[in-house]
Formats: sequence, structure tokens, C-alpha cells
Amino acid sequence: MFTLRKEGSVTSAAGFTAVAVPAGLKKENQLDLALVYSRQDCSCAAVFTTNQVVAAPVIVDRETLAMNNTAVRAIIANAKNANACTGEPGLANARETQRLAAAALGIRPDQVLLLSTGVIGVQLPMGKIRAGVETAVEILQREGAEAQRGGGIEAARAIMTTDTRPKHLAVAVELPNGVVTIGGMAKGAGMIHPNMATMLAVITTDAQVAPEVLQTMLGTAVHHSFNRISVDGDTSTNDTVLLLANGASGTAVANEQSRDLFAEALTFVCTELAKMIVKDGEGATKFVEIQVTGAATDAEAHAIANTIATSPLVKTAFAGSDPNWGRILAAAGRAGIPFDSNQTGLWVGIPGAEQYQLVAQGTPTDYQEADAAHVFAQPEFEIQLQVGMGVGTAVVWTCDLSHDYVSINADYRT
Amino acid sequence: MFTLRKEGSVTSAAGFTAVAVPAGLKKENQLDLALVYSRQDCSCAAVFTTNQVVAAPVIVDRETLAMNNTAVRAIIANAKNANACTGEPGLANARETQRLAAAALGIRPDQVLLLSTGVIGVQLPMGKIRAGVETAVEILQREGAEAQRGGGIEAARAIMTTDTRPKHLAVAVELPNGVVTIGGMAKGAGMIHPNMATMLAVITTDAQVAPEVLQTMLGTAVHHSFNRISVDGDTSTNDTVLLLANGASGTAVANEQSRDLFAEALTFVCTELAKMIVKDGEGATKFVEIQVTGAATDAEAHAIANTIATSPLVKTAFAGSDPNWGRILAAAGRAGIPFDSNQTGLWVGIPGAEQYQLVAQGTPTDYQEADAAHVFAQPEFEIQLQVGMGVGTAVVWTCDLSHDYVSINADYRT
Repeated sequence: MFTLRKEGSVTSAAGFTAVAVPAGLKKENQLDLALVYSRQDCSCAAVFTTNQVVAAPVIVDRETLAMNNTAVRAIIANAKNANACTGEPGLANARETQRLAAAALGIRPDQVLLLSTGVIGVQLPMGKIRAGVETAVEILQREGAEAQRGGGIEAARAIMTTDTRPKHLAVAVELPNGVVTIGGMAKGAGMIHPNMATMLAVITTDAQVAPEVLQTMLGTAVHHSFNRISVDGDTSTNDTVLLLANGASGTAVANEQSRDLFAEALTFVCTELAKMIVKDGEGATKFVEIQVTGAATDAEAHAIANTIATSPLVKTAFAGSDPNWGRILAAAGRAGIPFDSNQTGLWVGIPGAEQYQLVAQGTPTDYQEADAAHVFAQPEFEIQLQVGMGVGTAVVWTCDLSHDYVSINADYRT
Repeated sequence: MFTLRKEGSVTSAAGFTAVAVPAGLKKENQLDLALVYSRQDCSCAAVFTTNQVVAAPVIVDRETLAMNNTAVRAIIANAKNANACTGEPGLANARETQRLAAAALGIRPDQVLLLSTGVIGVQLPMGKIRAGVETAVEILQREGAEAQRGGGIEAARAIMTTDTRPKHLAVAVELPNGVVTIGGMAKGAGMIHPNMATMLAVITTDAQVAPEVLQTMLGTAVHHSFNRISVDGDTSTNDTVLLLANGASGTAVANEQSRDLFAEALTFVCTELAKMIVKDGEGATKFVEIQVTGAATDAEAHAIANTIATSPLVKTAFAGSDPNWGRILAAAGRAGIPFDSNQTGLWVGIPGAEQYQLVAQGTPTDYQEADAAHVFAQPEFEIQLQVGMGVGTAVVWTCDLSHDYVSINADYRT
């Protein structure tokens, strides 16, 4: 049992505050640097990019968590500069940011984690970063708990790049021994793909959870959420999901029942954040759920669903509201997974409303073109592809590939 | 030694004729059905799509070549309808097309091969196909060798879908024992990707070559040409390359020296056709050669080059003339091939002119932004990524992802 709080954020859980400031990285005094702070030590779990090219903040976070995953206190996040492909100077700048924040907050450097997103190959402007961190800490110390109120949503706004809206929510989870809160924020609009794309997420909870339990639950949650979304098939150098648990609720996730309830709520938070990312995909006008059933294994179903979800031909058909099932079957067929195309079935539908079968045993049914076109004209629809009689299933979420995607990415420097 | 004949085609080699007719599949009396005919029996080699969803003509061609790859005489190709996802009726229609052509030409059905491209999931309009085949054969029989002149280029025009221009060429190859000609045509503009995309190609030669030798040489040529190009990462249900050798020159490809010379010329023909396809990619305004060096193996270099060549973020940067090397490194990093990003180097250049190094040891050099932007503003440029000190290299050719690609594919039904 959990209750959704749409206006919730990383500061919804007890003991967490956040401050966002305009450090001058973005134009026109926009928020671009965020501090998320816990008044108590946090257990921490993290999932990072699988890209071979890894940004300095990812390297520093990995090193830091290897030393300390039980007493994390703060996260410094910046937009507009990814601090990736910046070599030794970039690493030194990341470590200096960690030291600056620690000194200002009166904690150890290994209690501070870093997130960066933005342009690759440019050194961090350390003057602006230093001033931004100091200002954020000053505000935190001056306002104390006051900073908590709107700080979470402002932090979600500060980490936006080509995002058009901040992404945040929280849930209250009823455990047998008390109520805990899980809150989160995320950014990411392009370079989104399974296996963690240019995507930053911070999740906070006031539950008391051991780091190894936290890591297992986060791994599962990410597998079913952030690794199921695709905007353009690209993955970034900076992707990071951080989960901090400070125990401030006084309620421990101690037994199996608690773990199941907490894990379910955590997966929900991650899934909702992931869906927000797809819905705000660069230039996206459609949100599409792709379901693959009947594969030999879940992994094979996932591979097929992914190939459909990343096909430029499928995604431009979505943009054109064209129920072009031929492209969907053709994409499925090149996923590298064997199946009998004469056994395929394809259904399309509007969630909670009409469903139509377009393909049976590999050939078109006598469906009405107008019905199929009506589904594809919706801002949100579902596609189900059955590839055989196996038990493997997968769901992924994707968006269309529109003119605006091209405009945004032909002009914006990541 | 071989000599390029840009105006050459599938009818440049001795003994081949071709006729194209408007069968009413396309609008406004456009050419849409082609017959390629050899007056002598041909050895035949073929490479087909690796897609799990396979069109009826591909199934029929595979069956036919299993029975007869030494006495092929004719190819019937149609545009506008792929005869894919059409089930048993689609197979029956393909076989009937084969029989119709054979009867009209006075040859056996297993001497006729088929190519189809166009919309998926719609049955062939057999009335139009029948009339088209009969008209084509009538013209062939009436005009005889006359049909040979412009027929090859007209056939290249008939198989066009979203292509904006016909793709054809020929080469004259000096073998020690005589001169042979290799001519070819191809179509394909979208759904193009390594491993044979919506791409049809017919190559003819008057050399005398055994089918097994032909197949080996075609496999190598396709590996270095059609499997090195990418427009959008999609592969189709219909991809086919057919190579016919009728021996009409009287010159045999008999010894190792001849085979090397012939194989080199064949790879050249395939590579030129492949490059024509990329240059005519849907909405393409840039032609980009991606070279990867220093990988452990050629296969690993190829995987990295492919991931760069299919990245929507890289391809939209090309469209925007943005020398965004960060996206190139990020794409390379998600290819699934381990490499040390601190050892990467990146060069960009204009073929035969300026070259600039943008990245050394994973970080930007002090290159001038104006120089890099100048290269990316060209209609044709090269990118070289060095990922280490290994001996593995690969070259792929790709194009940009433009607004027009989205327009073409949001509106066109494949």
C-alpha cells in the first residue's frame, strides 16, 4: 500500500532539504546548481551508466561509494556541463567540488556525491561552481527547514537541460511498523535509452535500510523502469541514479514483508520518473507502451521490444499517426531473436478503451484503417506484439521521432 | 585494372537486356516493373536479408536457387509492393509471377528470380503484375537487342521507391585472358542498415564464373559494401543482392589472378552502389565516412563504427553542421566494446583536403571551432576515431538525420 503525492519531491521524506541556485551556468539567472542535503547519515545505493566513456562525476561517485556507502550526507548536481571527456583536470575539478561542498557543510568529502549533465568536453567553470556551492550552503544554513518546502521542486528544475518541465513525485508507504516516504526527481530528455541514458535521478527516503538491501532493491527497480525507456537509443556518459536512505522516519525496512512493500513503492517511483522522461522526450508528441509477449524468455522479449522502440522508421510512423504495423514487424525481425513470423499477432489500443487486432498469424486482419489510425492519433497508446507461444514478456516505453527532435539536436550542443 | 563507366548498368555486360514498364503500381504512368534478361544461362549468387520477417519473393528466390543456380535467365522486379507479411496468398502470387514470366519468355519457372520493394502487408495486384510482365516480355521480344540500350537505366528507375535518382554503373575489367564487364543497379533510401536493408541490387557480368566462386566473391563484396552503410539502422524484409554471370564475353574467371582482379572490381561496383544509396538516403544532406582504428579486431571496430553511424544524436549533429565530437565518443562508448576512453583520438577532415585533430587522449585539443565547423558544413566529410593501439579497423558510410527524413517517413507508408 502506498499513496502517490504528485507534488512530492526529494524533500518529501523527513530530514532531507534541498536548495537550488543560479550559478551562471545557464543563461538569464536560471537555476542550474542544486544541493540535496540530509541532516542524518544516509545509506546509499547507486546505478551508473554502462557507457565505456565515463564522466568525471561518475568516476568520483564510484570511488566515494566504495569508501563510504553508509554515511552519505549531500549531493551537488549541476546542469549545462557534463564534466565528461575532460581528463585529469576534469577529475580534479570534480574532487574540488566535493571538497568545497564538504568544507562549507562541515562534513567529510566522502560524504558528498556529484551529478553533472550538459556539454561534453568542456572544463567546469570552477569560479561559478565554487560561488554556487557556497551560496547554496549559505541559503541552507540560513533557512534551515524552510529551505525544505519548495527546494525539492527547485532542485528538479535546476538539473533540467532540454527538459521542458521538472520531474518529481513522492509516495507514502505504509509498512507494518510505520509509514515511510520515498521521493524522487529526474532529468533527461534526449540521449535516453535502456541501460541508463543521459539521465540523472535522485531518490530519497526516510526509511532505515541497510545499503546492500537498498542496492538490491534499486537494481531491480531500475531494471523495470529507467532501463525500459527509450527516446533515441543513445546512452550517455553521465547517467546516474542515486538512492539515499537516512532513517529519519524511525521506521526500518527490516523483514521480508516490509522489503516487498518498500521495493514495490520504489519501483513505482522509478517507473513514474522514467515515464515522465519519455513523455518529455525531445520533441515527443506521443507516449507509446510496447508490450512483447510469447517470446522464449523475458530477455528475448525485451530485445525485441527495444528494437521496435528505437526504430527510426517506427518512431517517425508514430509522429505521422500512421498505424504502420509493417515497420513494427520488420523492426522486430531484426532484433536478432529467432521467431516464426507466421505466428505473430499484433494489437493496438488506447489504454482503458478500444483495442484492435491488426495482424494474426503474420498477415493483416480485416481491421478498419480508420480504427487503427484513430489509435495512432492519440497522445498515448499501446502496442502488443505476440511473437509465439513462449512465456517471455517485456514492456518498454517510447515516444515518437518528430521534426522537433531534429531541430533540438541539430542546434543544441550536448 | 578496371575502367569505370558511370552511365553503365545491368545491361552493359554482353548478353543482358532489360525492359521497364509502367504496370500501374506507382501513380501517373511511372516505371514500376522491370525485367532483366540474359540470352544465355547464368551462374547466380545471392545474399538476402537477415530479418526474421522475410518477404515472399525472398522465400521463393531461396527455394529457386537451391534447385537451380547454374541456369538463371531472368529477374522480375517490382516497386510499390513488398509482398511481405502476406502469408500463403503472397507466396502463391510470387510463384505465379515466376510462372507467368517463364511462360512468356519460354523458359522454366526455376530460371526466374523475383525482387519486390514497397508497402508491407498488402497482396500484389496480380492483374497489374500479369499485364506488366506480359508487356515487358513483348517489348523485349519485339525490340531484341534494341531494348538493351536504355533498358538498364530504365530498370534502375523502375525499382526506385523514395529514391530520388536511379543508381547504376558498370566497370570493364581487364583479365589476363580478356576483358569482362560488371554492371549493376540498386535501390534503397530508407530502412538502410548494415546486414542488408530495404535494398535491392542486381549485378550482371559477362564473365564465365562457377556459382560457388561467384557466391564467395559476392559474400566478400557485400561485407565490404552494402553491409557498411547506414541510413537509419532499420533493415527490411526484402533485401536482396543478385549476381548473374552469363559467360557471354567468352572469358572465364579461371585462375587466382583473374579471381583477385574480378573480386576487386566486383567489390568496387558494390561499394559504389552502396555509397549511392547513402548519398540518396531519405532526407540526407551529408555523406560521412566513419573510420575506426586501433580496436582489438576488425569486428570490434565495425561494431563501434556502426553505433556511431546509427546514433540519432550524432546524425542530427551532422544535420546541424555541429562538430559535436562528444556525441561521437558517447556513441562509441555504448557499442558494447571495451576500450580506454583516455586513449582515444578523433580526427575530422574533408577528403583530399584539410584534416584536424579534435581529441587526443580522450580530451579536446586546442583546435579552432571554426575549422571543425567548416568540415561539418561540407556535403562530404570523414571522421576517424582511434580507440586504442590494436590492429582492428573498419569503415562505414552514413548520412545525416534531417527534417526531411522525418517528413518522408511520417507520411510515406512502407
